[in-house]
Amino acid sequence: MEQKKVFETYESEVRSYCRSFPSVFQKAKGSIITDVDGKEYFDFFCGAGAVNYGHNNDVIKEKLIAYLQNDGILHALDMMTDSKSEFLEFFEEQVLKPRGLNYKVMFVGPTGTNGVEAALKLARKVKQRESIWALMGCFHGMTLASLALTSDKDSRKGAGIPLEYVTHIPAPYMFENLDTISYMETLLTDDHSGVEKPAALIIETVQAEGGIHVFDAAWLQGVRNLCDRHDILLIVDDIQVGCARTGTFFSFERANIIPDIVVLSKSIGGIGLPFALTLFKPELDIWSPGEHNGTFRGNQLAIVAAKAGLEYMLKHHIEAEVQRKSILIKDYLTKHIPSDKASVRGIGMIWGIDVYCGEYSAAITKKCFENGLIIERAGRDNSVVKLMPALTIPDQQLLDGLAIICQAVKSVLLF
Amino acid sequence: MEQKKVFETYESEVRSYCRSFPSVFQKAKGSIITDVDGKEYFDFFCGAGAVNYGHNNDVIKEKLIAYLQNDGILHALDMMTDSKSEFLEFFEEQVLKPRGLNYKVMFVGPTGTNGVEAALKLARKVKQRESIWALMGCFHGMTLASLALTSDKDSRKGAGIPLEYVTHIPAPYMFENLDTISYMETLLTDDHSGVEKPAALIIETVQAEGGIHVFDAAWLQGVRNLCDRHDILLIVDDIQVGCARTGTFFSFERANIIPDIVVLSKSIGGIGLPFALTLFKPELDIWSPGEHNGTFRGNQLAIVAAKAGLEYMLKHHIEAEVQRKSILIKDYLTKHIPSDKASVRGIGMIWGIDVYCGEYSAAITKKCFENGLIIERAGRDNSVVKLMPALTIPDQQLLDGLAIICQAVKSVLLF
Amino acid sequence: MEQKKVFETYESEVRSYCRSFPSVFQKAKGSIITDVDGKEYFDFFCGAGAVNYGHNNDVIKEKLIAYLQNDGILHALDMMTDSKSEFLEFFEEQVLKPRGLNYKVMFVGPTGTNGVEAALKLARKVKQRESIWALMGCFHGMTLASLALTSDKDSRKGAGIPLEYVTHIPAPYMFENLDTISYMETLLTDDHSGVEKPAALIIETVQAEGGIHVFDAAWLQGVRNLCDRHDILLIVDDIQVGCARTGTFFSFERANIIPDIVVLSKSIGGIGLPFALTLFKPELDIWSPGEHNGTFRGNQLAIVAAKAGLEYMLKHHIEAEVQRKSILIKDYLTKHIPSDKASVRGIGMIWGIDVYCGEYSAAITKKCFENGLIIERAGRDNSVVKLMPALTIPDQQLLDGLAIICQAVKSVLLF
Amino acid sequence: MEQKKVFETYESEVRSYCRSFPSVFQKAKGSIITDVDGKEYFDFFCGAGAVNYGHNNDVIKEKLIAYLQNDGILHALDMMTDSKSEFLEFFEEQVLKPRGLNYKVMFVGPTGTNGVEAALKLARKVKQRESIWALMGCFHGMTLASLALTSDKDSRKGAGIPLEYVTHIPAPYMFENLDTISYMETLLTDDHSGVEKPAALIIETVQAEGGIHVFDAAWLQGVRNLCDRHDILLIVDDIQVGCARTGTFFSFERANIIPDIVVLSKSIGGIGLPFALTLFKPELDIWSPGEHNGTFRGNQLAIVAAKAGLEYMLKHHIEAEVQRKSILIKDYLTKHIPSDKASVRGIGMIWGIDVYCGEYSAAITKKCFENGLIIERAGRDNSVVKLMPALTIPDQQLLDGLAIICQAVKSVLLF
Repeated sequence: MEQKKVFETYESEVRSYCRSFPSVFQKAKGSIITDVDGKEYFDFFCGAGAVNYGHNNDVIKEKLIAYLQNDGILHALDMMTDSKSEFLEFFEEQVLKPRGLNYKVMFVGPTGTNGVEAALKLARKVKQRESIWALMGCFHGMTLASLALTSDKDSRKGAGIPLEYVTHIPAPYMFENLDTISYMETLLTDDHSGVEKPAALIIETVQAEGGIHVFDAAWLQGVRNLCDRHDILLIVDDIQVGCARTGTFFSFERANIIPDIVVLSKSIGGIGLPFALTLFKPELDIWSPGEHNGTFRGNQLAIVAAKAGLEYMLKHHIEAEVQRKSILIKDYLTKHIPSDKASVRGIGMIWGIDVYCGEYSAAITKKCFENGLIIERAGRDNSVVKLMPALTIPDQQLLDGLAIICQAVKSVLLF
Repeated sequence: MEQKKVFETYESEVRSYCRSFPSVFQKAKGSIITDVDGKEYFDFFCGAGAVNYGHNNDVIKEKLIAYLQNDGILHALDMMTDSKSEFLEFFEEQVLKPRGLNYKVMFVGPTGTNGVEAALKLARKVKQRESIWALMGCFHGMTLASLALTSDKDSRKGAGIPLEYVTHIPAPYMFENLDTISYMETLLTDDHSGVEKPAALIIETVQAEGGIHVFDAAWLQGVRNLCDRHDILLIVDDIQVGCARTGTFFSFERANIIPDIVVLSKSIGGIGLPFALTLFKPELDIWSPGEHNGTFRGNQLAIVAAKAGLEYMLKHHIEAEVQRKSILIKDYLTKHIPSDKASVRGIGMIWGIDVYCGEYSAAITKKCFENGLIIERAGRDNSVVKLMPALTIPDQQLLDGLAIICQAVKSVLLF
Repeated sequence: MEQKKVFETYESEVRSYCRSFPSVFQKAKGSIITDVDGKEYFDFFCGAGAVNYGHNNDVIKEKLIAYLQNDGILHALDMMTDSKSEFLEFFEEQVLKPRGLNYKVMFVGPTGTNGVEAALKLARKVKQRESIWALMGCFHGMTLASLALTSDKDSRKGAGIPLEYVTHIPAPYMFENLDTISYMETLLTDDHSGVEKPAALIIETVQAEGGIHVFDAAWLQGVRNLCDRHDILLIVDDIQVGCARTGTFFSFERANIIPDIVVLSKSIGGIGLPFALTLFKPELDIWSPGEHNGTFRGNQLAIVAAKAGLEYMLKHHIEAEVQRKSILIKDYLTKHIPSDKASVRGIGMIWGIDVYCGEYSAAITKKCFENGLIIERAGRDNSVVKLMPALTIPDQQLLDGLAIICQAVKSVLLF
Repeated sequence: MEQKKVFETYESEVRSYCRSFPSVFQKAKGSIITDVDGKEYFDFFCGAGAVNYGHNNDVIKEKLIAYLQNDGILHALDMMTDSKSEFLEFFEEQVLKPRGLNYKVMFVGPTGTNGVEAALKLARKVKQRESIWALMGCFHGMTLASLALTSDKDSRKGAGIPLEYVTHIPAPYMFENLDTISYMETLLTDDHSGVEKPAALIIETVQAEGGIHVFDAAWLQGVRNLCDRHDILLIVDDIQVGCARTGTFFSFERANIIPDIVVLSKSIGGIGLPFALTLFKPELDIWSPGEHNGTFRGNQLAIVAAKAGLEYMLKHHIEAEVQRKSILIKDYLTKHIPSDKASVRGIGMIWGIDVYCGEYSAAITKKCFENGLIIERAGRDNSVVKLMPALTIPDQQLLDGLAIICQAVKSVLLF
């Protein structure tokens, strides 16, 4: 059967990205994806942040091949393994400690949403409260507890049951004259607010799916402070913008705050393998053994890749590189896109071009694909073209990609 | 730092299996796992059914190495890929069609619980009802929607919020004089039952975590019939006992029934890699694009392994092998364990020795581990020693393992 | 406007009994109701048990008129009043103490459902558990918390939201071979039942709306015992069958059990005025002031009537009268209704004739109305003709009424 | 037993107002309540608005006595009665039609909270949505569905289960720079707000329990407009401030809006008898017969009083009287209470003196009671002294009462 026909015939209608990028892909290297016909594409999507260190990063890949060739144990549930020990020690010693963090590490089912579910269970258990506060505009996953947080209508309506125990708080960019910190303060202190005190407030420091909204450091500090004063846990979902995407390994470093719980996934898997971690302060570690579990929580191959990825990041000063390239991206976009036509927002190597209209953004990404570049959309009405190139992308490829994008924007917005 | 110390220091208290099997493991091959000190263990646990075709099965492993060496695309979200096309076609043509099935395939987040969450979303969407019926004794996962089904107290109390929209139905083995099919019939037809009509009934054909309870074919047919008469979807969770574990690829084949939705995970990943599928009849495929999604739903390496695993299963007549070895296991256990001391239950290559007491079962599995065999427990009070050797285990290893187990049982139960 | 037209034009479609009994009523005395045309009807419905001591009982009525004429305070929220003091003391000294009960009295909003809501709040507060167990076939009211208990489909579907935190237990008459006490025992002790331990079990000792099912004393004692062993509160909803309806003031006296919480309404108001009480053991009285409240919880006129009603009941030995008339009813019904045509069930002065078919029962009650007798239906498919004459009905009126009913049954069932 | 001892011994700890006003009351007439020792009190509480036309209003009272003497039917469930017909016709012809309203009338269980529960059921049924929006600061009752709306912490915590399916919207007085209408608009139109579209928005036009916050006509019109544009029902809970309390029979008349559903209770009962009505536009009347019901929904004595009360209100031009006295109250309070010491807010004959501190307000109401005046508190921290004299209070009594109150305020606030 013709390959595309295979998908139409056998795969569920739920498939989505294959509709935007209707090629059959075969290989990938760095920032280039190649389809079965040999056509190459710049990847400015990067699995929504899952391959920050580039496709098939050789350093990481070699470790995997060696592990396989050596019959390294691949499936071990949450038993102790050599590779896991090495990862754990490296992560604590080389990543957490230098950043002043001493989180306990929980290996969860290898998806971001599973990490969020674990975080919610723990927060509720620790604080003995049912409610969680999340921000309007947020995205935290698609399994039920995470989905109750996730704010977009399309995702929510899939639940089929009411999504409860969550209160959505206006995001700071939504109402010009509303101080969202003091709004939350009022909800907590007004004895007639009708809103339950939450176990935790969960945030992304940059709302990615919400449309690339970067929360400033002062707001993040305000949130940390509010949570401290009211005995509320602060959870940072760093699934999409962690792993150096914003210029520091953890996205909250720029605000000098320490969340109580952090969720990592996507690029923590190093090379695109399923992996997720939930990190939390040691005093919160009141789990009973096995109270949250899952068959693939010890995905050894991903653990090997994870350590290799972290090593790579540190050795190649990826954080500094991101900061450098960030300026490059910003300058290019602001230079080429008139500010009265679209809004350019971002940090590190996650940027959005908000063209204020879903049809325009769709036309832009379609044109990009025709011109050999894969890029996705986000935000309200999907009106934001979302740039997430690999952090390792060579400057020239980055500039070439930006050129394709800006040209597409220009052709659609007609300036 | 000493390796075991690494885990105690850095890993969350939620870790569990590492407490039962306190070695640091390094390699694995077939049915043998080796720790860092070179000590070998028979694996009668198999990742709770995740490595049915043996650890590091060479046929599968070689395909993975080749894919990596060739820079095959590793992360592709749900875009079309060469490897996925091949898997899909093989699965439909070689696995489903010969069994008279024509399910649509949904690639879900690579964990069983994610597959169950997708199944529940779909069932609720199709039937526009909120309730799901599950059986007492069941286990379907640990994320919120799945957890609401899962019946054991310890898992449930981790939720931190009420687990609702589920009615638990007595399992057929629980009340001697209660016909559970007609019990459900009454709930549906009595206008004063107080119980909502469900969108779906979800079952395992063999309750594994519930204590190795095999539901007979007549009961499975009764359930299928009940669902048909009342317009209720039948979901079979084949995560643990699918993939030939019971002697046929799908565990429900022995009853000649066709569920509306099937969830596969664990060994569908071929070699222990995270993977999960939700299958359903084409007429149920009313998903909107992306209505359920997840970053790792296209885990290409697992897809490669999945196809290789299926090929291996078919080529090596694993189903027939399981049926043959099943008799071997049953005969050995019934011969060596007095029926007045323990109850032996099982099918295919999943067997339980119910010693009616959690302390006894703990002592038995501890002794097994001391004697070089990894085996877990299940069921009420964890009183059931649960045998799940690889389907590919050589006869002699199987017999050696059974000897270790029966000796341990004998030494604890004193017969 | 013609009177019936007034109702059709202005009153909501939700009106119901006026459809079964399409006359405009004006006066009532004892067991006779008179419509605006002067036509008289025997009342075998009695406001579903709200006028046990007869319409406009003169003894009670005179007290009300005197209270009004004396400008007795009519509305006092829950302030202390003379009349409330007298009621409270009389109720405790003359009703509770002689029966070995020392309940605290809570004046709730003057409806049965409000009393049930208060009972549920208190049970959940005391036990710090969310779940309540109720029986299939039960009716406990129509506000949200009560409605979640109420078992009939028609009532439940009005909620518009899921009805949760309740598990429905099979009633003892439903499954011949199921011991419902040991069924509940299993739900509580099986660590894989999936069913939460409840704060309370709520029962009617006679399911009235469920179809006149009388639970025998041994079962009631078994339930009391089960609750004791598992630290679960036992709530008896005595709204419909309390106030001497079954032959003792509280319906549970015949089983010699003491519930933890009791809800009274309907005839506790003496003469049909809105009134409800929630009674509970003193050690459960952990309410904060005003934690449950309502504007009309001190309905003084009803309080005056309530005391007068209790005095009347005691002075006229209504309990003994009920026991005497019960035999009269039973004998008459069993003599005139062939047991192969219908099932006759009841106790005291609540009896049901189950004709196994809603259309038959509708035809019977319609014929009764034509022949000057008001009577309602209950149970599954409303197949039970439900006899609830005033406890004070003179023997001849009772027999005349029974004759009308049996004649109607005969004419419909054709025997 | 000494009377006060009776309450301490037998009544539940839930009793509340009797703690603030520790006398045993016996009689009441107009605006004067008399205790058993003959001490008289001005009643500036009026049963929280339940006796707007004065205690034992003779015109109403005589009708009740005559009805009783004539053996008028007292309990009739929702059968048609002479008195109900007369009430219905009068209410429609004399109250609704002159105000341009043509609501259908639903007789609900005789408590405000029951009327709210009915309103919510209907709204959810009509719109097939689960969510309801309510305002922070609101109070709508204490049974479960109403309690989920009610905003104060103390009431909410009594539920014992999560209160869900409600989103609380900031009240317009809460955040200075937040336009609450456009806030709601955003929740509805932002596809990432995470907030479900509600079936209805429920408001009080004056938040009474919330602390006497009067919503201005423009805001009420904005709300009506918002609901129209988004197909959301507008429910006005007029339980406390309806029945002419604000100067028009319905409190929303001043804004010239027509709510879709209106709930009345308290003074609709004429003389303090339990009664409640839910009114709605005819096109919403999609109830099935009996879909919401209750034993006392046809409280005939209250129905007689209700009609008499309405006649009295119209004949004596109570609405105009309220408007006249309103100025009197406002002038007196603003003259005697320095605006830097307390905030005076109100409309018609409901006024609040916000002393910004619960201890102060407690001291003030205590002093009032000592000086022979009953008055309650409301609002955040109960910091608002709440004036609700009978609408019929003679001017001199009103002034005498105001003098007592202002003197108490002065003595506590020390000005």
